[in-house]
Amino acid sequence: MTKLSTVDPNASVLNPQRFIQRERENCSIDIDQVNTFLESDPRSRDLTHLIVDQLVNDPIIKADSATYDQTKLTQREVTVKKIARMALYMEQDIKTVRKHFRDTDLLKSLQDFGDTTTPPLTNKDLAIFDKRLSLVANMDPQLSTRIGVHLGLFGNCIKGNGTDEQIKYWLQTRGAILIKGIYGCFAMTELGHGSNVAQLQTTATYDQESDTFIINTPDLAATKWWIGGAAHSATHTACYARLLVNGKDYGVKTFVVPLRDPSSLQLMPGIAIGDIGAKMGRDGIDNGWIQFRNVVIPREFMLSRFTKVHRNPGATPTVEVDPQLDQISGYSALLSGRVNMVMDSFRFGSKFATIATRYAVGRQQFADKPGQPEKQLIDYPLHQYRVLPQIVIPYIISPAAFSLLNFYYSTLDELYAASSKNDKRALVVVSQKLKNLFIDSASLKATNTWLVAQLIDELRQTCGGHGYSGYNAFGKGYNDWVVQCTWEGDNNILSLTSAKSILKKFVDSATKGKYNKELDKRSFRYLDPQFIRKVFTSSSENKLDDLYDYTNIWAVALLKLLRHIAKQVDSTKDLDGASKLLVLVSKFHALYVMLNTYYEKLNSPTDSYVTCPKTKEQLWNVYKLFSLYFIDKHAGEFQQFKILSPDQISQVVQPRLLKLLPEIRKECISLTDSFKWPDGMLNAPIGYYDGDIYHNYFNEVVKNNPVEKDGAGIPPYHELLANMLTRGDEFARLGGANNAEILSKLTK
Amino acid sequence: MTKLSTVDPNASVLNPQRFIQRERENCSIDIDQVNTFLESDPRSRDLTHLIVDQLVNDPIIKADSATYDQTKLTQREVTVKKIARMALYMEQDIKTVRKHFRDTDLLKSLQDFGDTTTPPLTNKDLAIFDKRLSLVANMDPQLSTRIGVHLGLFGNCIKGNGTDEQIKYWLQTRGAILIKGIYGCFAMTELGHGSNVAQLQTTATYDQESDTFIINTPDLAATKWWIGGAAHSATHTACYARLLVNGKDYGVKTFVVPLRDPSSLQLMPGIAIGDIGAKMGRDGIDNGWIQFRNVVIPREFMLSRFTKVHRNPGATPTVEVDPQLDQISGYSALLSGRVNMVMDSFRFGSKFATIATRYAVGRQQFADKPGQPEKQLIDYPLHQYRVLPQIVIPYIISPAAFSLLNFYYSTLDELYAASSKNDKRALVVVSQKLKNLFIDSASLKATNTWLVAQLIDELRQTCGGHGYSGYNAFGKGYNDWVVQCTWEGDNNILSLTSAKSILKKFVDSATKGKYNKELDKRSFRYLDPQFIRKVFTSSSENKLDDLYDYTNIWAVALLKLLRHIAKQVDSTKDLDGASKLLVLVSKFHALYVMLNTYYEKLNSPTDSYVTCPKTKEQLWNVYKLFSLYFIDKHAGEFQQFKILSPDQISQVVQPRLLKLLPEIRKECISLTDSFKWPDGMLNAPIGYYDGDIYHNYFNEVVKNNPVEKDGAGIPPYHELLANMLTRGDEFARLGGANNAEILSKLTK
Repeated sequence: MTKLSTVDPNASVLNPQRFIQRERENCSIDIDQVNTFLESDPRSRDLTHLIVDQLVNDPIIKADSATYDQTKLTQREVTVKKIARMALYMEQDIKTVRKHFRDTDLLKSLQDFGDTTTPPLTNKDLAIFDKRLSLVANMDPQLSTRIGVHLGLFGNCIKGNGTDEQIKYWLQTRGAILIKGIYGCFAMTELGHGSNVAQLQTTATYDQESDTFIINTPDLAATKWWIGGAAHSATHTACYARLLVNGKDYGVKTFVVPLRDPSSLQLMPGIAIGDIGAKMGRDGIDNGWIQFRNVVIPREFMLSRFTKVHRNPGATPTVEVDPQLDQISGYSALLSGRVNMVMDSFRFGSKFATIATRYAVGRQQFADKPGQPEKQLIDYPLHQYRVLPQIVIPYIISPAAFSLLNFYYSTLDELYAASSKNDKRALVVVSQKLKNLFIDSASLKATNTWLVAQLIDELRQTCGGHGYSGYNAFGKGYNDWVVQCTWEGDNNILSLTSAKSILKKFVDSATKGKYNKELDKRSFRYLDPQFIRKVFTSSSENKLDDLYDYTNIWAVALLKLLRHIAKQVDSTKDLDGASKLLVLVSKFHALYVMLNTYYEKLNSPTDSYVTCPKTKEQLWNVYKLFSLYFIDKHAGEFQQFKILSPDQISQVVQPRLLKLLPEIRKECISLTDSFKWPDGMLNAPIGYYDGDIYHNYFNEVVKNNPVEKDGAGIPPYHELLANMLTRGDEFARLGGANNAEILSKLTK
Repeated sequence: MTKLSTVDPNASVLNPQRFIQRERENCSIDIDQVNTFLESDPRSRDLTHLIVDQLVNDPIIKADSATYDQTKLTQREVTVKKIARMALYMEQDIKTVRKHFRDTDLLKSLQDFGDTTTPPLTNKDLAIFDKRLSLVANMDPQLSTRIGVHLGLFGNCIKGNGTDEQIKYWLQTRGAILIKGIYGCFAMTELGHGSNVAQLQTTATYDQESDTFIINTPDLAATKWWIGGAAHSATHTACYARLLVNGKDYGVKTFVVPLRDPSSLQLMPGIAIGDIGAKMGRDGIDNGWIQFRNVVIPREFMLSRFTKVHRNPGATPTVEVDPQLDQISGYSALLSGRVNMVMDSFRFGSKFATIATRYAVGRQQFADKPGQPEKQLIDYPLHQYRVLPQIVIPYIISPAAFSLLNFYYSTLDELYAASSKNDKRALVVVSQKLKNLFIDSASLKATNTWLVAQLIDELRQTCGGHGYSGYNAFGKGYNDWVVQCTWEGDNNILSLTSAKSILKKFVDSATKGKYNKELDKRSFRYLDPQFIRKVFTSSSENKLDDLYDYTNIWAVALLKLLRHIAKQVDSTKDLDGASKLLVLVSKFHALYVMLNTYYEKLNSPTDSYVTCPKTKEQLWNVYKLFSLYFIDKHAGEFQQFKILSPDQISQVVQPRLLKLLPEIRKECISLTDSFKWPDGMLNAPIGYYDGDIYHNYFNEVVKNNPVEKDGAGIPPYHELLANMLTRGDEFARLGGANNAEILSKLTK
């Protein structure tokens, strides 16, 4: 309701909330079971609810429609207030994991460099906070990024490249991991180089005499660019620079370089920093540029787990590099971001699916016949086709996102364990797992950040003009989101590199029978030589009879696509010429992995947590709709590569797709209620739970647009308008000097 | 160059400008001829150049990178300054058309209600200004919209629905058409109703005694919503309200309602207005909401060309409606906007094509082999596939955009002539033309605004992080653009309605041979019964041998798609169930019309203005690439509806597409230089003409981000950061009350 409402609301012609209530009354699925399925398991679900409840009610962190009107500077300031708040939660979260709240000061012990009895922090200690950060990303992506640059990029760069002592020093003793003492940024990208990290131009020249590195920006294009946190907040950076020792270039390594005094934020000598300024979105992040002019750091500030510079006083300094692991270290800082972006895709997509579905159910427009009540948007077949597949996308992402996150943590734990012990054999296995993790994270990151960008865009359009309003979250949501398609690995480049690896695996398996059953069963079962043989020798039609067929057909599609590419490359010797198809391989791989993971989870007697038969049936409908929707989207390739015939597209795929839509439509409110997002998480009045669309929306608009100071409806610049409208006749303005009488005198 | 550049620019590793220079040196097409082709003809081209030159150099109107950092309020204020400037150009432009600059005050005579000797203003008088407005839209869409709402919506609503006297009074005498005296807005959309205009709820109740209408907002959902100009600037509105006379509802009609005093901007009694506030884009437009509470206007303020209320003193008032023309009047105000959006699509798309192409040529990343110079982005096949089809899209839009604009003006002239003379026979012909115009404008508006939205998005991604920067135009460009997919007819609804009309025409032609050769030859030649018969009886393969085949195949595709839909609807009796395919019909129709118009223009000995054979050949390559690109995009339907076989897709379409890309790549700089946009139009440093990407971009960033007031790199909120980082130990913060000694005392 609204105090500005003009009449009795019960008499309203439009009463959207009653439609949404009706859907809830008629719902036949178990929302709690679905939510548990989506949140992976009961423990994970409970933790999600606890954190979400804390965040949306936290007086500093909670989301507000005022955000949509804030200037860049205000957003940045508000974000820092929120970071300071998150830092307190961090302390709390670590103590919660360790169940250590009393007697001694756990955090102080962790910071004590000399303390040897307190176990150092591990991923497990950060599990609650990592989840908190992932969930706050769903409320305020710029907040989570600004913290993520510090913890995830700066922190992981140190974790991945530093010695145990460096890790302890920078992250614990200096306080970085507690968001305290120092604040880090990640100076990788330069103005002239993004994806091609190996060609970065910043230099770190070793000076034997002073036993220091001198960091320099040799050229404008070598200016560190886009560096989140650099413009305003970072006191230190993990700087990617070419290691130059005795005139030899050892390639790009990582160095910790102080930028600012943490107590005054004053810049260090030789550091030039500027603000990157306006961006498409994420204004709350203080992206900046950095130039280094003879900036001196101690030798020990180079992160040197895999590369060490030995001073050798009196002799020539030497460089010791572990080539295998040094390579891995390049990946590790960015991996975490990619893995998290898959989870973000699930959560961010689900938010907009909720908003648009509630609007589609509450909004009416046009009647079938004059005099009838207007129809709800969701009852139009076209609207169903536009909205419902977008609802199922986050459903299918979820199990793969959780699975990838677990795979990431377990692999990283193995890596740290093996590399601390210098266990070469274990390292070989881990590095293979890392390669698979790289493929999956790249393909899933690229595919899903694209899917969600399209989802937000398509769903915004289904909300018509109200979707274009700043207060309904789509605009800022889209602008904040789409950078995910570019940063931490451009989607096209990630797609290409993962697809090239898949193609190599395919050729190895198809021609040499090379296939690692143990490692590849996670995501590459379609590359099993037996399966390949079966697909290529079978003459029978591909069908969609059994539930698993909806996954399997993507495995078949992948193989046929891969074979086509392999043949083409074999004859043209031009791998780049197949790029367009390779991007498709990465996408098909992601769709296959997601369907497969979803299938296995829902089918599992222990992991699905869905016991209600009606609920399970709907979740299978979700699965089928996802597969059919994308088969139809890719009908071109499915026919071209003879995976399905034109008749199968016309008689099986499309009719089934159209038949499923009304089934999913019946539960569209419960399927989106199942995400369990409070209004404070959605921050979009046309999508609030009660469905009182018009009052909620009107209220937010009025709240954020107070009456003008010169009087209601009179803009501060009203004189400009009045002067224009009352500007009088042009002849008079020109002093009448154009009139015939005067003109005639001028040439007399 | 930049004063902040750190070293000798000639020593730069990256020197993008030399690549762009090299392209220009090797260019083999005649840019002037291409530009004439794109700008329709030499006269039109010269006028474009003259106006562009004026606008980009006008001290008030010129674009500046500062725009990207302006707040909403500043943007609105700056926009009004520009409007006031445009108003002066308007006076000048009218005098230029009439060649009347001296002796008597032309504008004053036009405003004089009693003057009968000065001919009233016609479309021809506004031709220069209309072009100016279209071109300024390309620099600053919010400026053109804010004027367009006044002239195009308010003005056209009066022109389309008012009597000759009302038109003269409001547009000339009151000064509206000179952007003077009054400022109009267009109060159609309500909070609860957008597309369904017939169900708008605002009421205009006739009061016989006072001979007035009383305008009321009966309900919150009837609040006029999204009204451009309402929040700050409009003094009058063209209000869509239900005409109620003697308790009878005559449906939605239009009324001029004063909102504000033009000299003080004070709101009229009974008018409640508020700001709509934050939007995804176009912050410079003051969209507002309006509620009417017993607002009284004279009966004569109803626009009454087609609907008249007679007072009949002493008897019951009567209402006289011309049903046929009253219907047309509903369309007319929105038609102009749709037609203009097709032109906008050409121009806006060409701007981003220019920026991204220059960047793709100048930017290098990765080398084929270690030690080699890095490769230019444009030389990667994937990059060519991503960028080059986007260049050709504005090429193919252009001829159709000009043709549609001419068709619009000629049809409207016929309509005004026929309706002024009340020539029933002429009106029948005009109303059929209007129907075709409605189909074409709807299908072309929807298809092209979507295409350009994708174009901006795709091209932004090809510029990587620099595309996400605010200063490179993509972000604001996209946010400003996408509303075109929603407003003045939602794209999905426009697609459906135009497709339903096309389906009806198809059925009429295919089953009854009904086809109007004269009227339908413009855009519907594929519906000629002879052609339909030929397509459906021929058993030969569709080929792409001759140039015209690239257009013709879309005619064939349309027919096969239409037949499929007709059969399906015939058996299901559910037209809505075919919506997904109907949207495709509208898109295919637009692609067909555009290819056809382009083909005819380029093929014409008189209209192409392209005499250089190499240039012509490249323009045919542009044409082929467009057709092939969209066939490949729609390979699913082309195979499903057996327009092309899977083998033709694999062996003809895709190889030709891939072969054309390197051909177009050779001329990519000249093809985009041919748009002839000065840097001031692009307003995106990575796309400036000289190709000095990094210096230009760096300069704009530094210019717009001055040093912080507390010292370089120290944000205004630095204490918040310092307090967080130096916050000390938690135990100490809590007064140490958690330590064992104290705790033990507490329960003693």
